[in-house]
Amino acid sequence: MIDRRRFLGASVLAGSAALAAPPPDTPVKNAAPPPDVTRILAKYIAQAQPDDIPAPVRKEAARTLLNWVGCVIGGSRNDAVAIAISALSPFFGAPQASLLGRKEKADVLHASLINGISSHVLDFDDTHLRTIIHPAGPVVSAILALAEYQPVSGKDFLNAIVLGIEAECRVGNAVYPAHYDVGWHITGTTGVFGAAAASGKLLGLSEQQMTWALSLAAAQPVGLREMFGTMTKSYHPGRAAQNGLTAAFLAAKDFTSSDQGIEAKSGWANVLSTQRNYPEITEKLGQTYEVSLNTYKPFACGIVIHPAIDGCIQLRREYHLTADQIDRIELKAHPLVLELTGKKTPQAGLEGKFSVYHAVAVAIVEGAAGEQQFSDRAVRDPVIMALRDRVSAVVDPSIKEDQVRIAIMLKDGRKLEKYIEHAVGSVQKPMSDMDLEAKFMGQADGVLPAAQARRAIELCWNIETLQDAAAIAEAASA
Amino acid sequence: MIDRRRFLGASVLAGSAALAAPPPDTPVKNAAPPPDVTRILAKYIAQAQPDDIPAPVRKEAARTLLNWVGCVIGGSRNDAVAIAISALSPFFGAPQASLLGRKEKADVLHASLINGISSHVLDFDDTHLRTIIHPAGPVVSAILALAEYQPVSGKDFLNAIVLGIEAECRVGNAVYPAHYDVGWHITGTTGVFGAAAASGKLLGLSEQQMTWALSLAAAQPVGLREMFGTMTKSYHPGRAAQNGLTAAFLAAKDFTSSDQGIEAKSGWANVLSTQRNYPEITEKLGQTYEVSLNTYKPFACGIVIHPAIDGCIQLRREYHLTADQIDRIELKAHPLVLELTGKKTPQAGLEGKFSVYHAVAVAIVEGAAGEQQFSDRAVRDPVIMALRDRVSAVVDPSIKEDQVRIAIMLKDGRKLEKYIEHAVGSVQKPMSDMDLEAKFMGQADGVLPAAQARRAIELCWNIETLQDAAAIAEAASA
Repeated sequence: MIDRRRFLGASVLAGSAALAAPPPDTPVKNAAPPPDVTRILAKYIAQAQPDDIPAPVRKEAARTLLNWVGCVIGGSRNDAVAIAISALSPFFGAPQASLLGRKEKADVLHASLINGISSHVLDFDDTHLRTIIHPAGPVVSAILALAEYQPVSGKDFLNAIVLGIEAECRVGNAVYPAHYDVGWHITGTTGVFGAAAASGKLLGLSEQQMTWALSLAAAQPVGLREMFGTMTKSYHPGRAAQNGLTAAFLAAKDFTSSDQGIEAKSGWANVLSTQRNYPEITEKLGQTYEVSLNTYKPFACGIVIHPAIDGCIQLRREYHLTADQIDRIELKAHPLVLELTGKKTPQAGLEGKFSVYHAVAVAIVEGAAGEQQFSDRAVRDPVIMALRDRVSAVVDPSIKEDQVRIAIMLKDGRKLEKYIEHAVGSVQKPMSDMDLEAKFMGQADGVLPAAQARRAIELCWNIETLQDAAAIAEAASA
Repeated sequence: MIDRRRFLGASVLAGSAALAAPPPDTPVKNAAPPPDVTRILAKYIAQAQPDDIPAPVRKEAARTLLNWVGCVIGGSRNDAVAIAISALSPFFGAPQASLLGRKEKADVLHASLINGISSHVLDFDDTHLRTIIHPAGPVVSAILALAEYQPVSGKDFLNAIVLGIEAECRVGNAVYPAHYDVGWHITGTTGVFGAAAASGKLLGLSEQQMTWALSLAAAQPVGLREMFGTMTKSYHPGRAAQNGLTAAFLAAKDFTSSDQGIEAKSGWANVLSTQRNYPEITEKLGQTYEVSLNTYKPFACGIVIHPAIDGCIQLRREYHLTADQIDRIELKAHPLVLELTGKKTPQAGLEGKFSVYHAVAVAIVEGAAGEQQFSDRAVRDPVIMALRDRVSAVVDPSIKEDQVRIAIMLKDGRKLEKYIEHAVGSVQKPMSDMDLEAKFMGQADGVLPAAQARRAIELCWNIETLQDAAAIAEAASA
């Protein structure tokens, strides 16, 4: 089993709840759970107030929001989104909530589903690196739709983002990596908790109702890793948003559920994971914040190939490289790179995201790895295909997950080398606020007028002062 | 691990796909899967025609339909249903489909959810004994709502019932009992496949689309056993219906998914079960029919306590027993009885269904075990409570799951004994068509006028001749 904790390294985790994690390669002990894991988490969510949350945490939540809005807009014209709307719109309710980046509206529940699909369909959304959860998709997709139905202040909205991500990632911390390794798409399986917690907070659930909402969430996990590379992958966070929001609406009317949906013998953690580190859920609540560990992708693909892309773009820039100069490219990479992105000959754009060979080739040829570089056009480009066939990768156990060693052999005999210690977008080398704005504007290009996109950015930065968080949905719709 | 196959005994299984099952206590071998489990099942579903299905199988499907309609009507006034409607109706779409037993309508997707909740909320629905799946809830809840939206002949409708139950129960056969033992509520986790298959059949999915629909189903299992005794238990088949129907609608528009959602390394069977007997899914398709093994409950509670109830009602009748004559009641029962229904002091009607003590007491006191006997009124009745405290049960490994030994010690010193070999409602001692009609009329009592209920019964028996299967929904609505 690969220990993904090494992805970050202990130093990064200082000051976070992750300190409670065992050192790498130590077997996790599944001690008897404390009696009230679900209730302890529910009580915290039900009681936490906006002013309890430190300013840097609120700032990171605003960055998460901004990045999410941009990703939804950027993904909103994808085929998966259009098909989902076409298939399900005959069953939409009243036009209560916006489908970001589009003209259509839907009922709150379907809006959460569709926005969740849009947010993840380009694999460009945020990542909680410790668990590879994409936290915002389930959480913000649920509560922005809710905020269009029931007025919510920006301050409460930001609080709900923090708390939803807290619930989602703490549950993830308790079961990662075993839960992910067995085949669950952790974003969909823990995202339901995040959506239920955040939605339930905005609905004013009592401690008992929040406990039921979390247990209702436990009963409807979404997502298998087998679906990666198909449209169903992005359905996972969308459905997680919808399921969690549904759970909160039901619990608000006293639809009963278990009081121990997470920790019971036949509860979520025992059934869906062989690893259950319950203190990750129950300890230091209100003292550490998982959203602080959130990261944002500069490249529109799985995080494991970001070091290779980063390195190739740097080499291209430094040496003014073109594909025809290159004899071959050799990578030494972490085992996960080949496990997750080992497709040699991707046929469709979506598949390109699961091919380190394509990613490296397109980074050299086009100097970028945005959505355009993972299109059907790109994976069928003869120049990119020809270079792709000259890329090889071997696993090197000494290489960490956010590292890579690149060697480019030129036809003239020169050998260019690059070692990436931390890829851009990592916790150690985060995207700046300006980077995030530039990413947002790129995603909005061709979808929204630039002035409107800039207004949406402003609203996200000023979320805490908004009287009505729904203003963001309006600004982000076509 | 308890081997539930002993519940039936080998003789009953003769002629069914279950013959392929290993004998009791033989470890199940997880051989490498055939390459195309999902596709083989999808191809069969996509191609099977109504006339392929033998008359006795079609008859059993009609019995399943009749029993399901009665259960939905009977459950339709339950608090869980009312709360779900109250919580979610603000998001309902156009009134496309009926909520059986009620006046409201909902969009097709929500109607499938609500009818699915109604069908299971009283624990009175059908049971595929080999897997303890309640097959009709997910399947018929999905396709009756669909039939109100898009005209479907009765013949095609019955075919879809057979095929949906086939998909659902074959997947269940492949993973039972390990999948259930770990804590999954198998009705919700396999029900998604049944709903997707039946809905997809009526939508005319191609083999490829059906494959995607099954994989979309695989990605959204519903239900943990921890939720038993709460309203969330009945949410499981309802949401399974809605998820499967959603999967079929998406696949019909070419929303892509895996081609191997069931058997892939990170697919449903590997992730959700330690046992995977794939030939149960792929062999003898079109030769054996799981709906033939379906059974219907005479009592409104979990099947494991039916032998005890049956025996007590018989003893009451034979000896004209009253509670005040009884000193104590002693049961020797299968281990599952105490595992699943060991609640000593149920506080609410729903909890009464998980108390063999209450079930035995109320069977003696009231001579019945319908919904009235598992109400809040019944579990708080002083006479029933007093008798309940004088009931004891011990596990006897020689007792099979559909058996019980009852000893009643009377205050006058007499000892009455009863051995039940097969409870009424079992495959060996099935409810007759007249029993099913009587059960239906009892469930409809107080919900629909008797003449209307009789008309609904007639429509179910004549399903194959109906031009429009939706007539059943109309007849079953208030």
